[in-house]
Amino acid sequence: MSISIAYLGPPGTYAEAAALAYVRTLASEAVSQSLLCPYPSIAQTLKSLAQGETQLAVVPVENLIEGSVVTTLDMLWQLDKLQIQQALVLPIRHALLSRASTIEAIQTVYSHPQALAQCQGWLERFLPSVQLIPTNSTTEALQYLDKDNTAGAITSQRAAQLYKIPVLASAITDYPDNCTRFWVMGLQPSPGGSYTSLAFSVPANVPGALVKPLQVFASREINLSRIESRPTKRSLGEYLFFIDLEADASQSSIQATLSELAPHTEILKIFGSYSVVTVSSSDVLET
Amino acid sequence: MSISIAYLGPPGTYAEAAALAYVRTLASEAVSQSLLCPYPSIAQTLKSLAQGETQLAVVPVENLIEGSVVTTLDMLWQLDKLQIQQALVLPIRHALLSRASTIEAIQTVYSHPQALAQCQGWLERFLPSVQLIPTNSTTEALQYLDKDNTAGAITSQRAAQLYKIPVLASAITDYPDNCTRFWVMGLQPSPGGSYTSLAFSVPANVPGALVKPLQVFASREINLSRIESRPTKRSLGEYLFFIDLEADASQSSIQATLSELAPHTEILKIFGSYSVVTVSSSDVLET
Repeated sequence: MSISIAYLGPPGTYAEAAALAYVRTLASEAVSQSLLCPYPSIAQTLKSLAQGETQLAVVPVENLIEGSVVTTLDMLWQLDKLQIQQALVLPIRHALLSRASTIEAIQTVYSHPQALAQCQGWLERFLPSVQLIPTNSTTEALQYLDKDNTAGAITSQRAAQLYKIPVLASAITDYPDNCTRFWVMGLQPSPGGSYTSLAFSVPANVPGALVKPLQVFASREINLSRIESRPTKRSLGEYLFFIDLEADASQSSIQATLSELAPHTEILKIFGSYSVVTVSSSDVLET
Repeated sequence: MSISIAYLGPPGTYAEAAALAYVRTLASEAVSQSLLCPYPSIAQTLKSLAQGETQLAVVPVENLIEGSVVTTLDMLWQLDKLQIQQALVLPIRHALLSRASTIEAIQTVYSHPQALAQCQGWLERFLPSVQLIPTNSTTEALQYLDKDNTAGAITSQRAAQLYKIPVLASAITDYPDNCTRFWVMGLQPSPGGSYTSLAFSVPANVPGALVKPLQVFASREINLSRIESRPTKRSLGEYLFFIDLEADASQSSIQATLSELAPHTEILKIFGSYSVVTVSSSDVLET
């Protein structure tokens, strides 16, 4: 069987590294060939799956430093029918790439705003007077290096190998344990696993409207590994909540909990139950 | 008395419009002169206040469409001693500025990523094949227009007046009610008012750790107008919570509630009680 996987491109992004790490987890007899399809935005990545252009989509959900990737959450709520197949935790190790001969020669640094933010302390210390310029992806930053020897780009080490650009400094992330969680989304039902993700809206301006849904989990001692609010975009003060449970919704006791939850919510969407794979740093570089 | 106010510049940003709207709310006999000081980032805006370079700082907290401005929340937690003096809700009405003669001539659109996101539907409909390029602020996007007649910038109408650049299309935001909430921060105690904002961390991986703090408010029928989680940046799954209450902490009953809350939190920070001013669209243009 061959499988097509959408991701935020171009090649060399962390999303591609996550997609490649996912492919390695698949049994080789079941999937003989995988086709990785880069898309220019997270929204287009998920739409390609929803419209059947691709069979899976790998999207970032949450970074340790910067928090939720809100476009992913907003699109999942909107597109409705996508189910989580697998979660991957990918180490994020930024490097400074440049054709400059020394760090001192660099005047401008390009990268995705999240990558710039994650290296803020390092940049303030070693390149305090450079101009920081945001780009749409870490890989996109590389296009400025060929025409300008005073330009640097913050990307993965892997992008340096792929595009054959020298690394001037590695491990420049302010938080050495920096990592990003990705979800592999598909249209088929989730496989089951020890994590369950869901989202719900609650009636607006009702005191304690969020307490009741949370009590359902607390009373059964189900741990929430994450809670994130997003605006409904209707009026300030109205929210959706995205919650991850340490529980498998294929178990009947958890199904009962979710049935108990439903009447305390306005709209409830369950994105499925899945397992989490932690990718090692060396695996990322070998891909 | 003269007063200095830090904001995310350069002049023409929505943050400047919020700062100007705040100045208009001050009694003229109390403040004879206000000095608006632009800073290149939200972090630097708030640091200028914490270090005593300025007396007040106006920062965006939450947009109706895009949600929380996470840099503001992270900096407030980190800087610790800043208190909210006033909240302002500012209407956000983006326009497309350009020196092109028609919309059809535009090939590239520059703006802050949030502004690009807020006009995504309009852009897909009227400029489906243009290249979108992110900038550090809406005003920064204007620097590309003088040298390139095929470039457009998404900014406020006010920036068009200020920099004398033609408006090719106005009211291009996808959500007509789009607005952003700003906080005016200072070092003196909050003045009191019907809203109170606070943040706390809870012990990690304890089932129901968030339920107990929320129950304190629910049992007293205090409405939460906002709840937002942010990563602690220590490990995935550990969060801080930022909460806005519809209550005035200068009242003794609310002080008692906050005392009851404290033992259910790890670290609790109270940013003060304040009132909310809603700025009208016409006020923004007149500034």
